[in-house]
Amino acid sequence: MVPRHDLTARRLPEPSEAPTGAPPAGPPAPRGPQDTTTAGEALAGYLNRQAAELLRGLRLHDENAGSAETAAQAAEAVRLLRRSARRISGALHTFRPLLDSAWADRVSAELRWLSGVLAREHAYAARLDRLLAALHRLSSPAGGGDGGPGGERDEPPRTGRPGAGAAKAGALLERQLTLARTRAHSAALRALGSGRFHAVADEVAVLASDAPVQDRAADRPAELTLGPLAELTHRRLVEAVEALPTGSQALAHTLTAEEGRHDAAWHQVRHLARLTRYGLEVLVGDPGADDTTAPLHGALLLAGHQLDRHRDAAEAAAAAAAAGRTPRIAPTTAYALGVLHADQRHEVEAARAAFTRIWPTP
Amino acid sequence: MVPRHDLTARRLPEPSEAPTGAPPAGPPAPRGPQDTTTAGEALAGYLNRQAAELLRGLRLHDENAGSAETAAQAAEAVRLLRRSARRISGALHTFRPLLDSAWADRVSAELRWLSGVLAREHAYAARLDRLLAALHRLSSPAGGGDGGPGGERDEPPRTGRPGAGAAKAGALLERQLTLARTRAHSAALRALGSGRFHAVADEVAVLASDAPVQDRAADRPAELTLGPLAELTHRRLVEAVEALPTGSQALAHTLTAEEGRHDAAWHQVRHLARLTRYGLEVLVGDPGADDTTAPLHGALLLAGHQLDRHRDAAEAAAAAAAAGRTPRIAPTTAYALGVLHADQRHEVEAARAAFTRIWPTP
Repeated sequence: MVPRHDLTARRLPEPSEAPTGAPPAGPPAPRGPQDTTTAGEALAGYLNRQAAELLRGLRLHDENAGSAETAAQAAEAVRLLRRSARRISGALHTFRPLLDSAWADRVSAELRWLSGVLAREHAYAARLDRLLAALHRLSSPAGGGDGGPGGERDEPPRTGRPGAGAAKAGALLERQLTLARTRAHSAALRALGSGRFHAVADEVAVLASDAPVQDRAADRPAELTLGPLAELTHRRLVEAVEALPTGSQALAHTLTAEEGRHDAAWHQVRHLARLTRYGLEVLVGDPGADDTTAPLHGALLLAGHQLDRHRDAAEAAAAAAAAGRTPRIAPTTAYALGVLHADQRHEVEAARAAFTRIWPTP
Repeated sequence: MVPRHDLTARRLPEPSEAPTGAPPAGPPAPRGPQDTTTAGEALAGYLNRQAAELLRGLRLHDENAGSAETAAQAAEAVRLLRRSARRISGALHTFRPLLDSAWADRVSAELRWLSGVLAREHAYAARLDRLLAALHRLSSPAGGGDGGPGGERDEPPRTGRPGAGAAKAGALLERQLTLARTRAHSAALRALGSGRFHAVADEVAVLASDAPVQDRAADRPAELTLGPLAELTHRRLVEAVEALPTGSQALAHTLTAEEGRHDAAWHQVRHLARLTRYGLEVLVGDPGADDTTAPLHGALLLAGHQLDRHRDAAEAAAAAAAAGRTPRIAPTTAYALGVLHADQRHEVEAARAAFTRIWPTP
């Protein structure tokens, strides 16, 4: 057994400026291409701040985990952890030519593993919320008084209680996703106590004070050295967007195993959009407040919202489909899950359409 | 028993101009507000032509019904019958102040009954086609070679054969809608042999040569007399469009009996759009070729296409829902029907959105 990692023994730096957790309301961050910051200062500064954030999240989690009273604080701590783990991982990936590449790849991959493990509990909870909200929308009565004119309806009369299927579908999803969430919670706790985690936490502790930027690049101006690498990530994103499959029919293949075959390409665009955004943060500190980066940063935030919605809807649709394959469910339950599945796949289509509308075409 | 109506004994007029069945490719029809046609001539002429068309359809049906070899011709005859019955009924309704109102109301209602009875067989066939095509789209494999990048998928692995539910749902719909279609066919044949039909056919035979337009209106210019009445129908349409419920959430209430509560308002708009279009035909013969009516006529045709799509999708969704309530179906069948139902309700929403986009706002 690996001994419990002692956080109190870990040297926490006191960064001279506030972490970039929330964008500062004041003037743009001092680090940026417009001044004489070197690449080493900019990259090391970013890694320092994010590493400090990660260690702060870790400390917060240790203080609050395991008690029902402080569950909200523990969840917030996990959010902090994931947030900075993603950013460090992204920076190490984008700017690896300025670092020991093998080391950067290894730590980046470990942080990706960590944020993945930590994301799951929240994802299952959010998925359940999304599906129950959709079921509610699909099955709640319309409320009296505003019905259309009472013209004759050519539809066959409805028999049975249509709401019963929705209620049973909701109960089934709640059971399945709550179980998945509980397991994800245990897995996250196990991960945070594992030797694998302690090893990466040690690396982060070093990053918090001393980022290993290569000497030959460290003294060059940030704009000349970091700029082209950030642009490379951006170019990968643009190419991934251009390669997205187009012209699919709405809901095509919904009832086949191939339904989600295009989803992965979209998830990859989501990943690259985040990487690009983090690259801008390294470059200018507060990319939303910098004239040169604000348009792209704004587009990335807007697009990111649709790409998140796309990912969430795709996974919710898959969860509805998985619930629909539960043996021995009632036909009414299966029917409601089928409606729910199609509803979420339409959300997927809507998110793709919205992304296409807002994404600036060259 | 009412004796079989003897069509050969019915005096068929030889109209001096071609029926308006297909819009003439040549110059605009001579009847129109731009010349000195009287209201009596314009309305009687339209009723004459449409009545002749109806009788032609009836003769064609008598010649071709009951034989598998001539089923296509019989179906075309029914289409002709419905087409002219709708137009006569619409003209009698819109221009009833120029006619014996009680007589016009009675014959208009009987022709509406007739076109309704005759429409059902085709409607069930088209509904089955629509649902099977949708199932095919939803369940056909995507075809090899163009899968997305092979990134990892966060979805649970699929088990079972997703196509099986779609196949069984298709078979169930085929059984149910083919039965309904067969019954509708018998009902249409019964209707065409009924005393009720013979009575209305006699009225139409009179219309074919002699439309009972009231003397006091007959001699006034068509534009001054028919125009305001056609405009009244158009105004009812505009008001019905303005009163359409707005702001509903996509797929809201899909799983409740209230799902289609707004459908009737849309079906009424469809009915009024047709009435308005037929009114224009009375007014100018070929409203698509007349400068004053062409814009409205074009809008009515485009809107009508979306309103037809709306009606067809709403009824297909209801048929999928009805099939989903069949006792003792397998959960996979019910699941596929739920997906299909939601798919068609999305078609309903898409048709509403398309209508709203193309309908000229005042």
